[in-house]
Amino acid sequence: MTRDTALAALKSVKRVQIQRFGADGGKRDDVVATEEPLEIRLSWTQPDGRRAQQSISITMRTPGSDEELAAGFLLTEGIIAGRAELDAIGPCGPPAANGLINVVRVDLAPGVEVDLARLERHFYTSSSCGVCGKASLEAVAVQGRYDLRGNALQIGADNLGALPERLRGMQSVFDRTGGLHASGLFDAAGQVRASREDVGRHNALDKLIGRALLKDELPLSDCGVVVSGRASFELMQKAMMAGIPILAAVGAPSSLAVEFAEEFGMTLVGFLQANRFNAYSRRDRIV
Amino acid sequence: MTRDTALAALKSVKRVQIQRFGADGGKRDDVVATEEPLEIRLSWTQPDGRRAQQSISITMRTPGSDEELAAGFLLTEGIIAGRAELDAIGPCGPPAANGLINVVRVDLAPGVEVDLARLERHFYTSSSCGVCGKASLEAVAVQGRYDLRGNALQIGADNLGALPERLRGMQSVFDRTGGLHASGLFDAAGQVRASREDVGRHNALDKLIGRALLKDELPLSDCGVVVSGRASFELMQKAMMAGIPILAAVGAPSSLAVEFAEEFGMTLVGFLQANRFNAYSRRDRIV
Repeated sequence: MTRDTALAALKSVKRVQIQRFGADGGKRDDVVATEEPLEIRLSWTQPDGRRAQQSISITMRTPGSDEELAAGFLLTEGIIAGRAELDAIGPCGPPAANGLINVVRVDLAPGVEVDLARLERHFYTSSSCGVCGKASLEAVAVQGRYDLRGNALQIGADNLGALPERLRGMQSVFDRTGGLHASGLFDAAGQVRASREDVGRHNALDKLIGRALLKDELPLSDCGVVVSGRASFELMQKAMMAGIPILAAVGAPSSLAVEFAEEFGMTLVGFLQANRFNAYSRRDRIV
Repeated sequence: MTRDTALAALKSVKRVQIQRFGADGGKRDDVVATEEPLEIRLSWTQPDGRRAQQSISITMRTPGSDEELAAGFLLTEGIIAGRAELDAIGPCGPPAANGLINVVRVDLAPGVEVDLARLERHFYTSSSCGVCGKASLEAVAVQGRYDLRGNALQIGADNLGALPERLRGMQSVFDRTGGLHASGLFDAAGQVRASREDVGRHNALDKLIGRALLKDELPLSDCGVVVSGRASFELMQKAMMAGIPILAAVGAPSSLAVEFAEEFGMTLVGFLQANRFNAYSRRDRIV
């Protein structure tokens, strides 16, 4: 464990005293996963040359990798298109009373225009279909960044099955608290290149994608992503916005996750276990 | 199963064809939990007598109990204070292409004022503490409806332990899809009075609370709530806004859930199993 990892682990758990009921009952010291708000502030240059700043999101997250979370959020929500649109990103302002800095400021590069209406992407009542899953897919298609239908990534079924154990092995905080979702980026050989944890499953994926964005590794067309929970519309959207052609979930997929995968040419795997899983779309990528 | 329940179950699952990998591999027909957007439209009378209407939320939810979801959302987000502030609530507009009506319109009673700024409750940067968990608690305290510290509800540890199995027994859709969160309302004897399911855990709780609101049963001061997943700040807030003094989670609590329970005098139970669980606050309610 590096010094940075150790520091992140300290911030990501909190000591509590509990009363255990049952065979080994009694008072105990225990740790729980930290949940704290993070505000993302966006700063950009307006067409008239003046600088603008606006708070665009407050999300409940587990502290650590805050810059990655902010960068990933901006990308997967369609506010920025890539690393080149970022000028600077970092903690902002003095620490709160609990010692944490819960604000990240993102300075966009000169010339990058901000369409804050995109943040209201869920209001797609102008669709011909009205409010429905199909309209949700259309709204994503409008800002869709990568066409994944032609992506030729393949992975062996055995390698897929090995992912949950490998991801779990990298979950340092989960082992202590049982309370965190995880996302892991894996390659065609089934190796987990990186993983991130958070109380919010969308945050864990945003951190993972933000990490790649800051390293200028997008699109992640040669990677899949494994998530510890269920597969929803929102997680599929985030993976697609990063160019990831495979999403494998330990839990169940929703109907809209399946429709999303079919619409955008992604491989969706659910109920992923060591020796067994279901493929809901584009199973040609599993060999 | 009543006719209404059967209809709800039909809308809440969708047939898909899957490829199973593993010992019993092959193509299968399967069902997944439905995820579709729901728009909540609020209609109210302005001080000048004119009628106003605004879309205030689009949430991804599992169809069924939409009116309960809308009513519960309005209550737990602090938009309305009780049943008397509702005039009418119902589906709005023609069905979308998939046959679902994904808009609920809520007509507020004459004289009820709407403070839409409350919907931006997460933007509490004016707090003396800055952005932090403590400020989040303060923001909730401002709109806090019930003081739960003096609530004298008690429940036996055995009855608590029996809740996960009882809740699971009521989860008709989960059994078919494995993909839904559930919330159940239980009494001092450990009987589950009602339960609701949804792809979103906050929606399952809003449906359950909305059901009670529409039956004019608030505050739920003689009930606890059991949730199938983890306990977060958001779930604690929703329970408190309905006057529920006990929240028991099958999964882990977050740090802010524990702080919330301490601040508002709620009993928080985590890792709830048949013969074992942890109490994080106000364990005097467990006998």
